[in-house]
Amino acid sequence: MSRSFWHKYQERYKQLQSHVCVGLDSQLDKLPACVQGSQNPIWEFNRAIIDATKDYATAFKPNLAFYLADGLRGLEALYLTVSYIPQEIPVILDCKVGDIGSTMQGYAHAFFADLKADAITVNPLMGKDVIVPLLQQEGSFAFALALTSNPGAQDFFHNADLKHKVPQWLKQFDESRLGAVVGATQVADLQEMRKQMPGRLFLVPGVGAQGGDLAAVLKYASDSPEEPRILINSSRGIIFASIGEDYATAAAKAAKELFEACKA
Amino acid sequence: MSRSFWHKYQERYKQLQSHVCVGLDSQLDKLPACVQGSQNPIWEFNRAIIDATKDYATAFKPNLAFYLADGLRGLEALYLTVSYIPQEIPVILDCKVGDIGSTMQGYAHAFFADLKADAITVNPLMGKDVIVPLLQQEGSFAFALALTSNPGAQDFFHNADLKHKVPQWLKQFDESRLGAVVGATQVADLQEMRKQMPGRLFLVPGVGAQGGDLAAVLKYASDSPEEPRILINSSRGIIFASIGEDYATAAAKAAKELFEACKA
Repeated sequence: MSRSFWHKYQERYKQLQSHVCVGLDSQLDKLPACVQGSQNPIWEFNRAIIDATKDYATAFKPNLAFYLADGLRGLEALYLTVSYIPQEIPVILDCKVGDIGSTMQGYAHAFFADLKADAITVNPLMGKDVIVPLLQQEGSFAFALALTSNPGAQDFFHNADLKHKVPQWLKQFDESRLGAVVGATQVADLQEMRKQMPGRLFLVPGVGAQGGDLAAVLKYASDSPEEPRILINSSRGIIFASIGEDYATAAAKAAKELFEACKA
Repeated sequence: MSRSFWHKYQERYKQLQSHVCVGLDSQLDKLPACVQGSQNPIWEFNRAIIDATKDYATAFKPNLAFYLADGLRGLEALYLTVSYIPQEIPVILDCKVGDIGSTMQGYAHAFFADLKADAITVNPLMGKDVIVPLLQQEGSFAFALALTSNPGAQDFFHNADLKHKVPQWLKQFDESRLGAVVGATQVADLQEMRKQMPGRLFLVPGVGAQGGDLAAVLKYASDSPEEPRILINSSRGIIFASIGEDYATAAAKAAKELFEACKA
């Protein structure tokens, strides 16, 4: 990292005045037929998607699972992808890791020092040991799962009241180093999350394929348009807008539409 | 996987009558100087460790973080390691993943179909969506974090009562497909976990470097020696028993000691 995520994000937002995060969930068997024959299909696909969508992206977010699913070639695609993304656009690796301190140091080395992501997502279940080693990486940033919107979120976030306990717990960490993943399919939940965490940066998945309501989400972007506190992620809605040969053009169009809709 | 984890584990236990899981936390900068010059130090180290300890191992458990920390070469070391471990010894990939269904399908493909691990560890925070896609992989097995023993375990396992809620929640899943990670540094906790989950297979870290009491842990192995329900993991205590040129011999000795101490 040449600069901190926080600085990079603020600068990028000032430039674009929009909240779009393009999710690179580049699952091999969903890629267009026209890239399947190339030496490294995920990388081939991502390069075209980045070229097509970068003018509308406040951030990019690859999800580790889809790269590991293609083995060594997939991890190579991830490295190539992160280094290809223009320096001024922050990269958030979605990996939802969470382990004891010595193991988190391993992940910090892997994802910040080696891969050179600007931020990662983390799972806070194992408590502060998950976060502390990450903060030791200068300029790093992590988004902790605070409330997800998948059906299974009932099991612990709702039924064990973690949707209140995690935001309370997050207060011990600086807002310029730690954000929150907040699911968007239930607007009432998002409203409550914002009430609990007024100044924290939210990474909001689920606006596209998972069915969140964009206009409602934007109401909770922040109190002031000068101080953006939200990244709205769309993955499949952008990158798989078409799976024909026009996939890059279709992705550009979908990204632009979300970009316009997310204008401050 | 040629066979289910559950079958492989039972057979291996019958053969050895001991509970040792050798944790391959092969952190590059901790490896002996004598392997640092080789083309792939982690793989070089692991091969010698596997040769030295396999006769005492009911399972092996590599932790994903330490492989990703060495980039592409590290992931290659992980693939070589898993394929080098003798077929009859189950391999548990410690990755503590937990995400929505489509992403978990990606991890299932990565770790079971491609890497050919027999089991993985998972983080249950996002609820049943974490588990269901894994069960679709025939013969697969996962260990869900039920109670960890790191300092940060206070934050949610204890303070949000997840140490009761997770075991309750696990009841919906078959014991031949889902086990539990249970930290061992507090024996009273382990006793309580066993009371809540009498028949479930426990993966118990923290007996070596993390300071758990072995004799106490063994009391909760199971009600019957015929029906083992515990794997006792030691990582650093075995693999880094020496960091001199005698590292493999020292690892064999440490593994044998734990093996004898864990005899049923």
